[in-house]
Amino acid sequence: MQKIADVKFSAAVLQWDQETYLPPKGAEFRGRQLATLSEIAHEWFIDPQLGQLLEELHSRHDLQDDQQRNVALSLEDYNKQKKFTPAFIRQLSEASSRCFHSWLQARSANSFALFSADLEHMVQLKKEEAQLAGYKEHPYNALLDQYEKGATVALLDRVFTEVRQPLKDLLGRIAGGQSVDDRFLRQDYPKQKQWDFGMELIRRMGFDFDAGRQDISEHPFTTNFNSLDVRITTRIDEHDFNHMTWSCIHETGHALYEQGLSADYYGLPLGEFASLGIHESQSRLWENNVGRSYNWWQAIYPRLQRVFPTQLSDVSLQQFYRAINKVQPSLIRTEADEVSYHFHVMIRYELEKRLIEGSLAVADIPAWWNEHYAAWLGVTVPDDKRGCLQDVHWSHGSFGYFPTYSLGSFYAAQFFAAAENQLPGLHEAIGAGNTAPLLAWLRENIHRWGRRYTSEELCQKATGKTLEIRYFLDYLLDKYVNIYKF
Amino acid sequence: MQKIADVKFSAAVLQWDQETYLPPKGAEFRGRQLATLSEIAHEWFIDPQLGQLLEELHSRHDLQDDQQRNVALSLEDYNKQKKFTPAFIRQLSEASSRCFHSWLQARSANSFALFSADLEHMVQLKKEEAQLAGYKEHPYNALLDQYEKGATVALLDRVFTEVRQPLKDLLGRIAGGQSVDDRFLRQDYPKQKQWDFGMELIRRMGFDFDAGRQDISEHPFTTNFNSLDVRITTRIDEHDFNHMTWSCIHETGHALYEQGLSADYYGLPLGEFASLGIHESQSRLWENNVGRSYNWWQAIYPRLQRVFPTQLSDVSLQQFYRAINKVQPSLIRTEADEVSYHFHVMIRYELEKRLIEGSLAVADIPAWWNEHYAAWLGVTVPDDKRGCLQDVHWSHGSFGYFPTYSLGSFYAAQFFAAAENQLPGLHEAIGAGNTAPLLAWLRENIHRWGRRYTSEELCQKATGKTLEIRYFLDYLLDKYVNIYKF
Repeated sequence: MQKIADVKFSAAVLQWDQETYLPPKGAEFRGRQLATLSEIAHEWFIDPQLGQLLEELHSRHDLQDDQQRNVALSLEDYNKQKKFTPAFIRQLSEASSRCFHSWLQARSANSFALFSADLEHMVQLKKEEAQLAGYKEHPYNALLDQYEKGATVALLDRVFTEVRQPLKDLLGRIAGGQSVDDRFLRQDYPKQKQWDFGMELIRRMGFDFDAGRQDISEHPFTTNFNSLDVRITTRIDEHDFNHMTWSCIHETGHALYEQGLSADYYGLPLGEFASLGIHESQSRLWENNVGRSYNWWQAIYPRLQRVFPTQLSDVSLQQFYRAINKVQPSLIRTEADEVSYHFHVMIRYELEKRLIEGSLAVADIPAWWNEHYAAWLGVTVPDDKRGCLQDVHWSHGSFGYFPTYSLGSFYAAQFFAAAENQLPGLHEAIGAGNTAPLLAWLRENIHRWGRRYTSEELCQKATGKTLEIRYFLDYLLDKYVNIYKF
Repeated sequence: MQKIADVKFSAAVLQWDQETYLPPKGAEFRGRQLATLSEIAHEWFIDPQLGQLLEELHSRHDLQDDQQRNVALSLEDYNKQKKFTPAFIRQLSEASSRCFHSWLQARSANSFALFSADLEHMVQLKKEEAQLAGYKEHPYNALLDQYEKGATVALLDRVFTEVRQPLKDLLGRIAGGQSVDDRFLRQDYPKQKQWDFGMELIRRMGFDFDAGRQDISEHPFTTNFNSLDVRITTRIDEHDFNHMTWSCIHETGHALYEQGLSADYYGLPLGEFASLGIHESQSRLWENNVGRSYNWWQAIYPRLQRVFPTQLSDVSLQQFYRAINKVQPSLIRTEADEVSYHFHVMIRYELEKRLIEGSLAVADIPAWWNEHYAAWLGVTVPDDKRGCLQDVHWSHGSFGYFPTYSLGSFYAAQFFAAAENQLPGLHEAIGAGNTAPLLAWLRENIHRWGRRYTSEELCQKATGKTLEIRYFLDYLLDKYVNIYKF
């Protein structure tokens, strides 16, 4: 298992380099180097000898508890993976290359039609994948399970139904509230100063720079090659303070999770993150529950004003706080605020569910998309580029991924509430800029468990309850009443 | 073959990252990731199925000339590699890890005794390796051949005998010549300005930044992941102008060779460099024959003076030229000038030859070393750290590597003389800072051939003669008469 991890993490190094430092002409051969490494990892993982060894270990009664969990989860992974032949994996990977290229072309030509044939093929393959993997109740469940073990259409339908109307109401009340001016966030903010300030934030949050680093890339991301080498990236827009700041905080949230996993379980399930939803809960807890709170900025804002005196000395903390929380339904998911964001996800979720069950045709995506953006977010989609072509996920074959973003926000609110409840001095500590107690709570209750528990088990263990949407809704209401004075 | 290359080049990416950006705690798992990749590459390469396929191809008569060469050379490599069992390779690799660690400890404690047991074991393994590989005349030939195909003790004895007395005479005449003052090279030279100037030199030399990059590392090196992704590194000493400048020029010389290899032969012998001696000839030709010439600096020096006006405006080109060519026998190979350098190599060559043939015991290395430094270079070795512990090579098991450094200088002089002879306007072009014709000549006569020819064949083809030492001696004499006015 650890040798397989060596190969996968090697591929991750090559990918990291691809996003950060690769010279343009190096891309072609990098592609084939990555393909070869993936092939090795997959071949090794579906080797029947490995399955046999895992079966043998699984039937033994003398293993320690941790060993047992590692074996059981590895065997589960093996049994899932072996359902896919190398030929099918190759088909998927080739389809994904083609699909990604036609997505790029379709985006630049601003025409969904250029994407639809390859996407159609991809959807076919994902349906096939769901059949091969097997599922109960709904074929989309097979895909969801890959990113969020145990997540189902039934669960997500319930959660999204619960959340939709309250969020819609909230958007309505915000629209009727006092207006928020955030133009001062889009002045000139020099690159180097932004970088330095971002590094300061990351350090403050507890990122271990001896076990990781930050670099620049086009799209910010977090990766790791083991829990002692966790890498994050950011991008800096000199005319917008937002990008760097919230990408730094968001990615550091992911990175703190990776740095909190156990190096002793390198390459083994107990050394891996629980699920994408839990991963996202960590990035969003830091980004939103901490990083967009009035409380935290009480401590940080004076420092920020000293770094950017000409830009911010006339802006009060209250003005700054309102600006970084401005709500404005818009077209692009990645630029959305905390409230309207979840409509972007719900639209994608409903759409994917229909595609996989076969009740929506690929050709009908743009119409369906635009109709729902109008109905749910009240925005008119002017073209495909700012509509159904905006995300890369489908071109990679990532169906079932989007819902984990919303789950992340929901778990984040519940975890944060539990931490506040369990740690009486937490609010004051954060207000003084000290997030160490929060990190310690996350390490203890979330990080260290790796994949030992499913998201729902982990949530139960950490908060005493399975996922409840009210924590998220209460958090939003509490915050936005204050900001929009409705 | 290309899949094997994918794995090897992936390992090269991990190594590059290790030297440039790896956070300290990431080193441990990086080691095992690299070991796994090496294991895969070696296992694949000695797979009898590969041997059989190569044999079949080799016996066919319908291959094109290039295909034939690729097959013949691959088969040659296969037949060499298959002599070593995975167990032996593992033994070597483990011995090398141990040896490297005890070398580090021995260096920091300044005591050869801490290194000798592990080195002894390594020498035993290298003797075994020579037996497994097979050889004619001298066991050291088997080791030389790995770095420089066709190089033998007979050849090197001849070459070094020819060169030793003339170099000794030259050192004597230089010692009696006018003194050279190079103190102005060790003023404050700010980091960023040095970096920028180095990048300018690299660009001037024709390095393609779309197919490569430069970064900072502790020890400068060149690596590549294919001919369209060639990476060099440098280090900057703010109190010494020399390090950055000559490392940039030297590594760019290596890099131009790699960028000049054919991408069409990715992973195949015709896409690989001819030998270490030829590789070094490229770095040294640029570093010394161009980069330390009065001619080239005529064009560059005014620019350098503008970059560092306070440091250099009072220093004439002639003073600068003399300073960068100062000759001073000293203790450390990597800091040696062009003349005394080769005594460092000859001492190592003679020592390695004796170790491998068994006529010198590991325990006697320090005494032998110190005696020869006194006799050949006239310097007294004060301790092991500045003596026989200075180089990392033996700890890696690299016996037979050092001679390629000298061969590089000798080939460089002969190549440069041939280029000057064949290109009438070359001297004037370089004097105007235009090295494009030189690069074109190297591309045409050296780079594009890959491993098609051995060093000696390539030399014959490019210069009309096999290696002759007189080009190197003439070059030195011509240069130093001028500088030291003897």
